[in-house]
Amino acid sequence: MSIRIGILGYGNLGRGIECAIKQNTDMELAAVFTRRDPSGVTIQTEGVPVCSVSEAKDWKDKIDVMILCGGSATDLPEQTPEYARMFNVIDSFDTHARIPEHYANVDAAAKEGNKIGIISVGWDPGMFSLNRLYANAILPDGKDYTFWGKGVSQGHSDAIRRVEGVKDAKQYTIPVDTALEAVRNGENPELTTRQKHTRECFVVLEEGADAAKVEEEIKTMPNYFSDYDTTVHFISEEELKRDHSGIPHGGFVLRSGKTGWNGENSHLIEYSLKLDSNPEFTSSVLVAYARAAYRLSQEGQSGCRTVFDIAPAYLSAKSGEELRRTML
Amino acid sequence: MSIRIGILGYGNLGRGIECAIKQNTDMELAAVFTRRDPSGVTIQTEGVPVCSVSEAKDWKDKIDVMILCGGSATDLPEQTPEYARMFNVIDSFDTHARIPEHYANVDAAAKEGNKIGIISVGWDPGMFSLNRLYANAILPDGKDYTFWGKGVSQGHSDAIRRVEGVKDAKQYTIPVDTALEAVRNGENPELTTRQKHTRECFVVLEEGADAAKVEEEIKTMPNYFSDYDTTVHFISEEELKRDHSGIPHGGFVLRSGKTGWNGENSHLIEYSLKLDSNPEFTSSVLVAYARAAYRLSQEGQSGCRTVFDIAPAYLSAKSGEELRRTML
Repeated sequence: MSIRIGILGYGNLGRGIECAIKQNTDMELAAVFTRRDPSGVTIQTEGVPVCSVSEAKDWKDKIDVMILCGGSATDLPEQTPEYARMFNVIDSFDTHARIPEHYANVDAAAKEGNKIGIISVGWDPGMFSLNRLYANAILPDGKDYTFWGKGVSQGHSDAIRRVEGVKDAKQYTIPVDTALEAVRNGENPELTTRQKHTRECFVVLEEGADAAKVEEEIKTMPNYFSDYDTTVHFISEEELKRDHSGIPHGGFVLRSGKTGWNGENSHLIEYSLKLDSNPEFTSSVLVAYARAAYRLSQEGQSGCRTVFDIAPAYLSAKSGEELRRTML
Repeated sequence: MSIRIGILGYGNLGRGIECAIKQNTDMELAAVFTRRDPSGVTIQTEGVPVCSVSEAKDWKDKIDVMILCGGSATDLPEQTPEYARMFNVIDSFDTHARIPEHYANVDAAAKEGNKIGIISVGWDPGMFSLNRLYANAILPDGKDYTFWGKGVSQGHSDAIRRVEGVKDAKQYTIPVDTALEAVRNGENPELTTRQKHTRECFVVLEEGADAAKVEEEIKTMPNYFSDYDTTVHFISEEELKRDHSGIPHGGFVLRSGKTGWNGENSHLIEYSLKLDSNPEFTSSVLVAYARAAYRLSQEGQSGCRTVFDIAPAYLSAKSGEELRRTML
């Protein structure tokens, strides 16, 4: 029998989940839940209903894992505990500072419902976190580096759009090659914010806007841009649509460390991602962990989990015997 | 209380374990066991006894995890099941084709002894295997690539030393840059053995040996060299000692895959290691998994495990709460 997946929230992430389910033959999409009017939402999978979130509770016995595709700012802190009382749930909660609080809330709710809730799944938090943990456990005497990009930062793009005179914009976060190379060479550099990443902005101006003023306002924006070397390009609306409509991202997690009786040997562990579509890759990670949630629940487990708590074999559709034979 | 570790076999790997224990404050070295005359073996840790393997059984209650540092060809197939009846054990068994058989033997023995046995720990098998599994679970529609090097292959160095006229030799396995780049560019190349790696040999000749004949014999050696582009350098014994006494290694695990309703987006996951000392890095992985073995045993679990079966958090000395707060 297939693992029956529900999608709650049909934005970029929800659509990515739908695609990922299609790639996993042990899963099927049971239903999509939306806060919008369901009659206005068209999905790609034939024969699968789109329902109002208010109907979700009626699906308790027809869905094995509900994947929550809301935002971390306001949706997930409410939704994940709420739905963990009824369903095994997965989310991609990514407000790093609030993870302990979110964990506690989901843990209590999931235990109450005798369900599994896996939080903060994706690539950062998610695969990057896993690589930080493995690398730290292996090389206790070392130094961690995380670089993001080249990729689109939604938050920074939004910040530019709020500048007066800006019609539309896209911002790319770009790791600085020389900094990456210094880390790879085992130089253990101390890197400032400015030394690690640059920011590149593609901006469409409103008719008659003052380009110099917009550029100045972007480059000096506190928190978002003032600590970085920022480049601003003014382009037409057509160019933005043609050249910058994708949502690529990626990055690098590195740890350099020493071993030996006197720390005489150096080692470098590097993990990197180069992603055409940030939401589709995140979705693919979420779906693999949905399989784990289902299995943990079948074993009678309940409560909150993170990627740290889940043995890798739970993510794969293959049996333990097959994994040992083909991948070990 | 510290986790008390025993080392069985004091070669390169055993010495690496000793160094790694020193870096982990929640562990202590309890004893080293050797098949040699213990009086002839000097270790670096003060106040720790060197014992004969025949005494190991007397240490059943004084060692939490025994790390087995023998070879995969003949030592570990015997040793790991034997000691898993008495101790929680870890090994670095790396004969990929015989892993299922080894797993079954260790599983039966460890269950009999109510102990945990973790096999095939290191980087390949080990960290590379983990990365293959994670990447495959995330991107079901994709292609795997593993490259090894630049690094010393002990097996190939030994093969050269068996050639008549060779006094000593060191062989490096080197990944082909253009092949790596083609994978990184998402070209999904089909690569032959020759296209993936080259082999570079540094050879010290016996007095009066025929260099041309030795070179020909190396380059045409079946299994070891005939399928590769091989370079042979003749150097002096002093040069070999001065420039080639290290045991560096490393490599790359990549998976490229597609997502999207029609596979329209491409992704690349890459994991790489650059290691000054192959045995010391392997040791560092073994010691992290020794922590996991201890904890699993404390929970009352028994039987054989691989890296696939162990939740990442078990490897870290930090608590779950601290890991979520600092690394997620």
